[in-house]
Amino acid sequence: MIAPPRVVIVGGGFAGLHAARALRNAAVEVTLVDRTNHHVFQPLLYQVANTSLAPSDIAAPIRWILRSQRNVSVLLGDVTAVNTSARTIDVAGHGVIAYDALIVATGSRHAYFGRPEWEPLAPGLKTINDALEMRQRMLLAFERAEWSTDDDERRALLTFVIVGGGPTGVELAGTLPEFARAALRPDFRRYDAGAARVVLIEGGPRLLPAFPERVSATACRDLERLGVEVRTGTVVSDMTADGVTAGGEHLAARTVYWAAGNAASALGRSLGGQLDRVGRVLVADDLSVAAHPEIFVAGDLAAIKWDAGTWVPGVAPAAMQMGRLAGRNALHRLHGEPTQAFRYRNKGEMATIGRNKAVAVFGQRVAMTGRVAWFFWLFVHIMYLVGFRNRLSVLLQWAYAYCTFQRGVRLLTPRETARAPGGPA
Amino acid sequence: MIAPPRVVIVGGGFAGLHAARALRNAAVEVTLVDRTNHHVFQPLLYQVANTSLAPSDIAAPIRWILRSQRNVSVLLGDVTAVNTSARTIDVAGHGVIAYDALIVATGSRHAYFGRPEWEPLAPGLKTINDALEMRQRMLLAFERAEWSTDDDERRALLTFVIVGGGPTGVELAGTLPEFARAALRPDFRRYDAGAARVVLIEGGPRLLPAFPERVSATACRDLERLGVEVRTGTVVSDMTADGVTAGGEHLAARTVYWAAGNAASALGRSLGGQLDRVGRVLVADDLSVAAHPEIFVAGDLAAIKWDAGTWVPGVAPAAMQMGRLAGRNALHRLHGEPTQAFRYRNKGEMATIGRNKAVAVFGQRVAMTGRVAWFFWLFVHIMYLVGFRNRLSVLLQWAYAYCTFQRGVRLLTPRETARAPGGPA
Repeated sequence: MIAPPRVVIVGGGFAGLHAARALRNAAVEVTLVDRTNHHVFQPLLYQVANTSLAPSDIAAPIRWILRSQRNVSVLLGDVTAVNTSARTIDVAGHGVIAYDALIVATGSRHAYFGRPEWEPLAPGLKTINDALEMRQRMLLAFERAEWSTDDDERRALLTFVIVGGGPTGVELAGTLPEFARAALRPDFRRYDAGAARVVLIEGGPRLLPAFPERVSATACRDLERLGVEVRTGTVVSDMTADGVTAGGEHLAARTVYWAAGNAASALGRSLGGQLDRVGRVLVADDLSVAAHPEIFVAGDLAAIKWDAGTWVPGVAPAAMQMGRLAGRNALHRLHGEPTQAFRYRNKGEMATIGRNKAVAVFGQRVAMTGRVAWFFWLFVHIMYLVGFRNRLSVLLQWAYAYCTFQRGVRLLTPRETARAPGGPA
Repeated sequence: MIAPPRVVIVGGGFAGLHAARALRNAAVEVTLVDRTNHHVFQPLLYQVANTSLAPSDIAAPIRWILRSQRNVSVLLGDVTAVNTSARTIDVAGHGVIAYDALIVATGSRHAYFGRPEWEPLAPGLKTINDALEMRQRMLLAFERAEWSTDDDERRALLTFVIVGGGPTGVELAGTLPEFARAALRPDFRRYDAGAARVVLIEGGPRLLPAFPERVSATACRDLERLGVEVRTGTVVSDMTADGVTAGGEHLAARTVYWAAGNAASALGRSLGGQLDRVGRVLVADDLSVAAHPEIFVAGDLAAIKWDAGTWVPGVAPAAMQMGRLAGRNALHRLHGEPTQAFRYRNKGEMATIGRNKAVAVFGQRVAMTGRVAWFFWLFVHIMYLVGFRNRLSVLLQWAYAYCTFQRGVRLLTPRETARAPGGPA
């Protein structure tokens, strides 16, 4: 008996997971390696950051999701390089894994426009740990404000700056004012938590640049009605622990979130293909890498144009579609069959604004706003959530939060104080 | 107008929270200081450690719990000392807070019988962070076993040693074998996760020493049927990263949990009263400290005897009862009224054993075992859980876990890898 061909998938996000599923009935040995043990439903990550959901509501173990697919092994490990000539990947601390076909789906991280020193000052939102970091900083700012006896310091503690006016920035900004007013105000005695100030800064001329102009205008108006200060056409020129300088103005702020830029995973560099400006791999129309037909790239790491001549956006449906095709094409390649070209089916984009509004677009023509879009958003996200349990838990918590204006997951659990013996419990 | 007297409560556990509530209608200014922002329902902490529940299911912000009690301020801070002559407490980084009456309810931490070097090797279970640490280590051991190619190493990775045969040790041990067999076995490809070995070590002659002997025997038999190796009368003499030496035998084990000993919070030392062997404050029958009638101690930090001449146990109902009385007595003292003596009403003790058995006792006479005790345990814990939302969420997750044998919260979220840029997502 000949050993089945080995397909290695790096990354367990939407692309990697769908690549593995596409190989469900194939006579191949699939190995999926990810740096974490869980798949994250990224479109809801901002709801962990804003205390609406618990991490486990939007994340599930990758091996659990794939448990019934017997041809897949899942391994926890950090892939540091691809050796394209030896056809192996290097896994930190565990040596090498050989492949006959490789699917790289390691996504992207935040990029700070050449200012890496801003990263510790303004966390971004890509992983569960990022979301916990954001939650931590926000809750801690309100706690510190209760101690503060200095008005300027308290104002800085209660000023939240969000850099980047895409869907993530809009969603982070939209829920904060209401959370401060409805959930936190009754809990503090020494100041008005409802006075928290939220500033959303966008370098381009309008919010949500991927949406039609009139939708951007609606989103901006809805955010301003909620109390968010929207600053478009404003570029951040400096950042310190005291605050942000943007458009010549200094904003004293202790909490800054980054939702402005992405850089593709560094693993793309070791594939030998051409990269674009943000480090994405320019793939052939079958998602393979030019010099290495046995390597496919899917998800946010892949740069490919679609019918309209624009780049396929870094959204979940695109990653799922690419992942599925990368899986199928890897199989075609192993069988010596012709591969298929990627055709992006645009499922549109969405963003919520506060607690009962949203915007949604499908191409440049069809757009929804307001409460209708919000219900649509709710429906789509619940349907896509992995696993029945998570769906039910999320629905329950949303219903609770919606009816009571309260949030369920306001826990500060800093690791560094965890093991300190003695002292107050 | 004269400013109202200031009551300061240190610690937001069962005792501190109930002390605050006892002062609900009093004309006093209450300040509650805790090192974390949340109250933890400690009896269910082991269910966070074993992946059954999420942290937010059993923890809620202290200020949220007390939000409608207008005479309470809640502050996040680490109280490092009590200055009994100046009547102030020191809060790290925030200076001093003055009190007219003080209630100290800072509980206890694990104690390692004079071997503090064992702490990093064998985490205990007192806080949410402790539970996350245990969960992390268990999940990581199974992940590492999937990589392992060495049989001895894999056996050590799959050996879980729990030191201490009280309720916490029994509860931690009882759920592990079933979790490995039912939930994890289908998820791993390279080894049988169901072969995980669980060893429960108790230095005394029997498990659950606070329970009648026949209940201990039932618990031991139930655990052994689940596959737990119970070693009573066995003392741990050494511990390294490789494993545990107990009763002359070396157990190669990569994961060790500590449920053996407690030491009272170090804050007790600065109260000037007499301490017992484990650092608890020997309080008068009204819970006050001998030389300082304006200071009361409640919960696990207080050492007091009850009718039967034995020490009041360190259980949640005792802490609640002491907290309530400490609050009332602080008020009596401020008003120059006589204080009341503490009378412990024994609500019994309980422990679950695996997924549908438990033991429960009420005094030395009434005892329940098996499924009846388990249903009773379920009922009592759901009733006591703070906040309606948590109750519903916990019930839902238990029902899900019970019916499917699956667990919901199997997330590895190590902080140290959180901010690493590049690499696989």
